[in-house]
Amino acid sequence: MALADTRFETRRRKLSSKLAAQRIDDMLVTHLTHVRYLSGFTGSNGSLLVSKDRTAKIATDGRYTTQIAEEVPDITATIGRKTAVELLSQVSVGHRVGFEADFVSVSELKRLEAECPEGVTLVPVSGVIEEIRLKKEELELTRLTEAAQLATQALEELVEAGDLRAGRSELEVAADLEYRMRRLGAERPSFDTIVASGPNASKPHHQAGERIIADGDLVTIDYGMHRLGYNSDMTRTFAIGEVGSLEREIYEVTLASQLAGVKASTPGTKLADVDKACRDVIEEAGYGEYFVHSTGHGVGLDVHEGPYAAKTGTGTLEEGMTLTIEPGIYIPGKTGVRIEDTLVITSGKPRIITEYPKDLTVL
Amino acid sequence: MALADTRFETRRRKLSSKLAAQRIDDMLVTHLTHVRYLSGFTGSNGSLLVSKDRTAKIATDGRYTTQIAEEVPDITATIGRKTAVELLSQVSVGHRVGFEADFVSVSELKRLEAECPEGVTLVPVSGVIEEIRLKKEELELTRLTEAAQLATQALEELVEAGDLRAGRSELEVAADLEYRMRRLGAERPSFDTIVASGPNASKPHHQAGERIIADGDLVTIDYGMHRLGYNSDMTRTFAIGEVGSLEREIYEVTLASQLAGVKASTPGTKLADVDKACRDVIEEAGYGEYFVHSTGHGVGLDVHEGPYAAKTGTGTLEEGMTLTIEPGIYIPGKTGVRIEDTLVITSGKPRIITEYPKDLTVL
Repeated sequence: MALADTRFETRRRKLSSKLAAQRIDDMLVTHLTHVRYLSGFTGSNGSLLVSKDRTAKIATDGRYTTQIAEEVPDITATIGRKTAVELLSQVSVGHRVGFEADFVSVSELKRLEAECPEGVTLVPVSGVIEEIRLKKEELELTRLTEAAQLATQALEELVEAGDLRAGRSELEVAADLEYRMRRLGAERPSFDTIVASGPNASKPHHQAGERIIADGDLVTIDYGMHRLGYNSDMTRTFAIGEVGSLEREIYEVTLASQLAGVKASTPGTKLADVDKACRDVIEEAGYGEYFVHSTGHGVGLDVHEGPYAAKTGTGTLEEGMTLTIEPGIYIPGKTGVRIEDTLVITSGKPRIITEYPKDLTVL
Repeated sequence: MALADTRFETRRRKLSSKLAAQRIDDMLVTHLTHVRYLSGFTGSNGSLLVSKDRTAKIATDGRYTTQIAEEVPDITATIGRKTAVELLSQVSVGHRVGFEADFVSVSELKRLEAECPEGVTLVPVSGVIEEIRLKKEELELTRLTEAAQLATQALEELVEAGDLRAGRSELEVAADLEYRMRRLGAERPSFDTIVASGPNASKPHHQAGERIIADGDLVTIDYGMHRLGYNSDMTRTFAIGEVGSLEREIYEVTLASQLAGVKASTPGTKLADVDKACRDVIEEAGYGEYFVHSTGHGVGLDVHEGPYAAKTGTGTLEEGMTLTIEPGIYIPGKTGVRIEDTLVITSGKPRIITEYPKDLTVL
């Protein structure tokens, strides 16, 4: 990169500032997603130590000597197999070192404690880096938008090619969609692609099976693309030929609910109120008992991350957060609908990055 | 299933027997791969409690009420959101309950301890279920063989269609191969597909990038299929047109090394000796410094699992284990070769389940 990339340093500074409040001298970062977020390193073995004095150290093993020098030019790396131990050995006596309690296993902690220098204390820390990740920077929003647009393009191509039709299996459709995403730059799907047809659409967690799509089915497609570290997430429900009146009705109710959720997604709104905006529409239509999950989640380095819009959700939306709005109605054993967009919260109306028609598409 | 499926009960009995030796009354299984291995349950939230008296309890949340009754007919399920806590609450006072220390995070343990009934002690346990998984049952070997055969078929189809050729990018080839696997029944690739061409073949951890494959390249393809819970793993290196003498030489040396490793893979052989069998051939040919990783690993529910054939490997091979033999030679910045099969250890010669030619294929 020709220009100095200060993103990672900026993020580490935010972390450093948070450490003081928790009486932590150094934070030992071992969750690879967080190592990448705070340093740019993409290898499969690495640890990072971020100190309250705003310095940082990084370690990886011999396979990545060249790669880490290229990806993390601003921190000199220590090379060694046990990367966390390498960094711990460089901590000053008397320091309290935070470790990622949500990601370090009980066994790993035991190994760290065994090799921790005398006079250094290991302290469990939770959620601090996740808090920084909540608000996305410009380049992150660009990456998320790109992933969403390319994934949308893959679905458009699939539909235009006539590959979503009666007579094909859910698995064939999923395979085609994943292939199109891969050709457009996906490293992998963000999660196992859901293609749920007919009665399968009534199961929110159905993936893609051998069922053959039939005339009169609703088909719910929930899918995403992982690219350059970021994810996309979108759901559309299609009608295959003429669908019944129940199908049409629950589609219209779900769409109204989804639009209400999008409308409610402005800075300062409580996450529980976003959920309520969606839920109220479905409850008023008499389908409340069939909306069996929560309304949405953030999308970023993880396809499911904060904030969470749920009945019991806490906190409020802020500019720069992402959020899915994905209400659904599932009539057990019969049919179902889910419609989902990923939004970026802005000062005004939210920006929908999953641009794809939401009126019922009949194929 | 018409016939009673006793697989899971048999596995749980093995676990029960091991608990007594560790003075554990009940084992709390929360790692989902292990819940599936010991019960058949495939949902995304579930815990299992296996007791030394050979009884078992299972829990999941409301989304899976129907599914768990179908998949686990022999254990009555408790339904609740915090599945581990649900099971802990059913433990007898005075019991020592093992938890999976390699998979339970420090935060999770804290939550479990907070909700653990008085008089019940949580005890860290490591590797006990992995030990049972080492030796595969007949049906597991069938699943592994099927996955390997279908993955091999996908590569055959790719090569026969002329889709591995100069002028195509590594990513295009990876996308085509993954698509063919998906159409043949893969739920997903076992890991990010490696297509490493030309100088990229010198990086053991290269994945698939935008490089265009050129005449004179070696192309290493390392890939696998995840299907019905099991994985496959195979590597072949192809020549695109006429390759140089260095390429031909390291191919022949790697192949000789791989054949030596296969030959050494018999019951009773030390894992370190399997590694040595491969390494000796490469060292004698003068390329020792370029074989920078270990020789192999088991393949099963995880694509990388025990046993491990490495220089410092401990333990010996036993009938019913699986093992990859995957030596490689990587000349930095220039070229590289890796050849990998997955074997099943039998009483005689190992059975190679990744049946695909190993003589240098020139395309």
